[in-house]
Amino acid sequence: RVHGGKQLNLTAASMAKSRFEYVKTFEQDFPMLPNTYLVVRVDGRSFHKFTTEHEFTKPNDTKGLGLMNDCALSVFREFPDVVLGYGQSDEYSFVLRRSSNLYSRRASKITTGIVSVFAASYVYLWPKWFLTKPLKYVPSFDGRIVAYPSDQNIRDYISWRQADCHINNLYNTCFWNLVLRSGMTEAEANKALQGTQAAQKNEILFQKFQINYNQESAMFRKGSILVRAKLKQQKQQQQQTAPDVSAPMVDSVPSASSTPDVEILHDDVIGQTFWDTYTILQ
Amino acid sequence: RVHGGKQLNLTAASMAKSRFEYVKTFEQDFPMLPNTYLVVRVDGRSFHKFTTEHEFTKPNDTKGLGLMNDCALSVFREFPDVVLGYGQSDEYSFVLRRSSNLYSRRASKITTGIVSVFAASYVYLWPKWFLTKPLKYVPSFDGRIVAYPSDQNIRDYISWRQADCHINNLYNTCFWNLVLRSGMTEAEANKALQGTQAAQKNEILFQKFQINYNQESAMFRKGSILVRAKLKQQKQQQQQTAPDVSAPMVDSVPSASSTPDVEILHDDVIGQTFWDTYTILQ
Amino acid sequence: RVHGGKQLNLTAASMAKSRFEYVKTFEQDFPMLPNTYLVVRVDGRSFHKFTTEHEFTKPNDTKGLGLMNDCALSVFREFPDVVLGYGQSDEYSFVLRRSSNLYSRRASKITTGIVSVFAASYVYLWPKWFLTKPLKYVPSFDGRIVAYPSDQNIRDYISWRQADCHINNLYNTCFWNLVLRSGMTEAEANKALQGTQAAQKNEILFQKFQINYNQESAMFRKGSILVRAKLKQQKQQQQQTAPDVSAPMVDSVPSASSTPDVEILHDDVIGQTFWDTYTILQ
Amino acid sequence: RVHGGKQLNLTAASMAKSRFEYVKTFEQDFPMLPNTYLVVRVDGRSFHKFTTEHEFTKPNDTKGLGLMNDCALSVFREFPDVVLGYGQSDEYSFVLRRSSNLYSRRASKITTGIVSVFAASYVYLWPKWFLTKPLKYVPSFDGRIVAYPSDQNIRDYISWRQADCHINNLYNTCFWNLVLRSGMTEAEANKALQGTQAAQKNEILFQKFQINYNQESAMFRKGSILVRAKLKQQKQQQQQTAPDVSAPMVDSVPSASSTPDVEILHDDVIGQTFWDTYTILQ
Repeated sequence: RVHGGKQLNLTAASMAKSRFEYVKTFEQDFPMLPNTYLVVRVDGRSFHKFTTEHEFTKPNDTKGLGLMNDCALSVFREFPDVVLGYGQSDEYSFVLRRSSNLYSRRASKITTGIVSVFAASYVYLWPKWFLTKPLKYVPSFDGRIVAYPSDQNIRDYISWRQADCHINNLYNTCFWNLVLRSGMTEAEANKALQGTQAAQKNEILFQKFQINYNQESAMFRKGSILVRAKLKQQKQQQQQTAPDVSAPMVDSVPSASSTPDVEILHDDVIGQTFWDTYTILQ
Repeated sequence: RVHGGKQLNLTAASMAKSRFEYVKTFEQDFPMLPNTYLVVRVDGRSFHKFTTEHEFTKPNDTKGLGLMNDCALSVFREFPDVVLGYGQSDEYSFVLRRSSNLYSRRASKITTGIVSVFAASYVYLWPKWFLTKPLKYVPSFDGRIVAYPSDQNIRDYISWRQADCHINNLYNTCFWNLVLRSGMTEAEANKALQGTQAAQKNEILFQKFQINYNQESAMFRKGSILVRAKLKQQKQQQQQTAPDVSAPMVDSVPSASSTPDVEILHDDVIGQTFWDTYTILQ
Repeated sequence: RVHGGKQLNLTAASMAKSRFEYVKTFEQDFPMLPNTYLVVRVDGRSFHKFTTEHEFTKPNDTKGLGLMNDCALSVFREFPDVVLGYGQSDEYSFVLRRSSNLYSRRASKITTGIVSVFAASYVYLWPKWFLTKPLKYVPSFDGRIVAYPSDQNIRDYISWRQADCHINNLYNTCFWNLVLRSGMTEAEANKALQGTQAAQKNEILFQKFQINYNQESAMFRKGSILVRAKLKQQKQQQQQTAPDVSAPMVDSVPSASSTPDVEILHDDVIGQTFWDTYTILQ
Repeated sequence: RVHGGKQLNLTAASMAKSRFEYVKTFEQDFPMLPNTYLVVRVDGRSFHKFTTEHEFTKPNDTKGLGLMNDCALSVFREFPDVVLGYGQSDEYSFVLRRSSNLYSRRASKITTGIVSVFAASYVYLWPKWFLTKPLKYVPSFDGRIVAYPSDQNIRDYISWRQADCHINNLYNTCFWNLVLRSGMTEAEANKALQGTQAAQKNEILFQKFQINYNQESAMFRKGSILVRAKLKQQKQQQQQTAPDVSAPMVDSVPSASSTPDVEILHDDVIGQTFWDTYTILQ
């Protein structure tokens, strides 16, 4: 009968499968050390090209940053063990609570799961932020995972990224004003800023462009912090320092998807106040 | 002067950054062993739910598989070191040539890079395959990387996945015909198939549903193989076995993005012919 | 000239060496996570056979344990970053301070270095403890390294080993008295003890052999703790609990090599007192 | 009753043990990739000091090298999966067959097991080679493990170590003759040899010291190779090249422990002959 012509092949397939299954033993899992904070940092690959081709505003594109924050919200929605997020430029860091047992703490599962949600969300949410502007090609991201053993270590990690944001944003604000408003070439702007201290960059901005750097948008200067609202300490609220009102961010763009339990802040995380206000560490 | 009010903070930021930078030393890289084939396997997370919510045809959705293949083409486009792809169901494996030095062979960079492109492409290419059907939420994928030292090992890996495809697809074809055409519940269908051999499943398909399993679509039975066209051996062409015409795949769906140098096959990869035809291994 | 006959070979050797040097890139280092306590545990391999062939006293051989402690002292002498040692039976654990940068924290260097010193010392110090009894063959040991992130974790690790010592030693004390003094076979003794609780084992010892277990040697019951004397807190000394005098250990064997700065204790490490007395953790 | 005074403590110990056992989950195993050759290289730590303090003959101490070979034989005796050893100076490499499943290929178990046997044997066998000369302190060794995927890779690894031996030994032979027979300081000898090619070093040896380097002991020039005799190919024997008779090694020292199935050679391993003679690779 015709239909039986390859029955043997299928029985063979079953036998074959068990013959081939040994290849599974080549898989090597790297579980992350228990009782440590896990950070997954997602970084845009070739985002210089991507932002140029999609004509992002320089040095900061508010919609582009809003989209990044929105992608981070997707990660919060999908992974309940994420307690803190910090984003700036084309990168986003996610902190998992130290007792997390997500995927038995397997490095590759956690990292690829988060990167996958972030990257897919970037495409999915693009129209919400950029409306009819076409997405010419898919952006891509890489990710890494790092374990931090102590509260101080994880605070220092987040502080490191915010200090990096401070430094880069001041530089970029000068650089792009020199290029776009003073007509310098990129090479000339680079040279003009070489070796300058923070104070000198401030001075350039003020003298040449009447920009008071500290009144720039807090999101640009400090990046974005995502925290679960339930981690906010009730008793602490009255002790909180006054909110940073120097640069109230008036969103001319759609608000991020409603996810009632996550707050988006643009506060200082190097000092003590933030860590007193939210019980991230425990 | 007002604008200088936080100059100290910025100088402090620079100092802070170098104080915090020690956290970088906590990063641990796992470079994959040189001179081995690297396989990155991308797996859909919770795809049972995803395909149900998006009303995919059971047991196989031609458009859904076409979209997976299209995502795989994106990976081929982005990562020239990928020489072979194999996809079935909600998974896709990518083989990097053994001499690849992509990202200095760092496990997390390679894995997240590929997963990221795959996941973002799934959303990006969705409308091309599903037209106006809305994508309700972003799918997500995880990934892992495995090193295979020998030619035989990598062939056995690919054979393992194809044998898995054979077995699952025969089962699923029976199962869904019993459910959709015989009115069984899923539990009844499961029970009816428990312990059956391949031959018995063939018989069920033929007797009850007049289905000759071997005439089912080759893409369903054998999965999809992606190879770079330049790896096709010229001298071998005349020796090739006759193409598998048992189930000519007539695409009623848009063809995958034109990428002239990659071929999509639905051939047997357990036997010798495929490996004689394409010089994947070297 | 004769002597020049193989000059080419030697030049070739230099050239060859650089041609072969690529194999160095296959080495994979696993640095241990910074800011964690590192524990190297050394375990005797096939010590049941070794102790039988060398006629060790059962259940505990005072000279054998003294030799183990002496080997541990060698490790303390060689590796200043070791702050705590705990030994029982044929195993010894060594704790490195959390800030240690020994060998850049490379797992294999630290582990093999410690195992090597321990194993070589066992042979070297054998005659000091066993005098003219010949060492029939070399004992061997394996080792592993584990990172512990918090003070509680490292305390729990040490407590785990001491609880293990308690349980095994009570069992072994019963077992060997039943075998050596009641004439049971090993199988009979095993069976007699199956399922007994600690209280019942105490009762057996007291009723059958007039042994008050709590007056057995503290070294047998609690294992041996090595600490650097300089870690003893001066101010704490008067607060210390009375020393464990239940089983004063009168050494009829040579004392361990004089290493003035290391103390050998047989105290409880599960409770708080020990950790208040010595500042191991910081 | 007195004897029951601490019964509770012992029950507590059992309970405690299960409370503490979680620390076991912090252990991370690194299994070596299957189907690869595994090399464990043992290196003397601080052997410059060790050989000086024990007045080893420079540049080569025949007894010292004999002792190293004897230690390697112990490793062969203890670990049947070791198929090849290569030693020179204060280092020894051991190759495990690619199908080995020793300790489930766990890196730390294999590495520490071999290092432990090697280090303990060094002390144990010392009197056999150095008679009444006292061993002043224990030598120590570190070890590492590396996986090599292909036959060529493992051949290149062994060739790399032999090329290293060639180069170092020629240099050291010149250096020590300049110091010991020409009265140069070590600094002067170093300077005299700086930048010299192999041919020039040969010339120095011949002109100044009437030494034909190629007639130096093969063990010094080529190191020591240990192979299991059963791996010798019978059919190949008549095709073998003439043995290296340039420097017949007449042992004035005790022969290594009789282990009938292991051969100690001082042959070239860079060329093809050795690999045709012994079926190490398979």
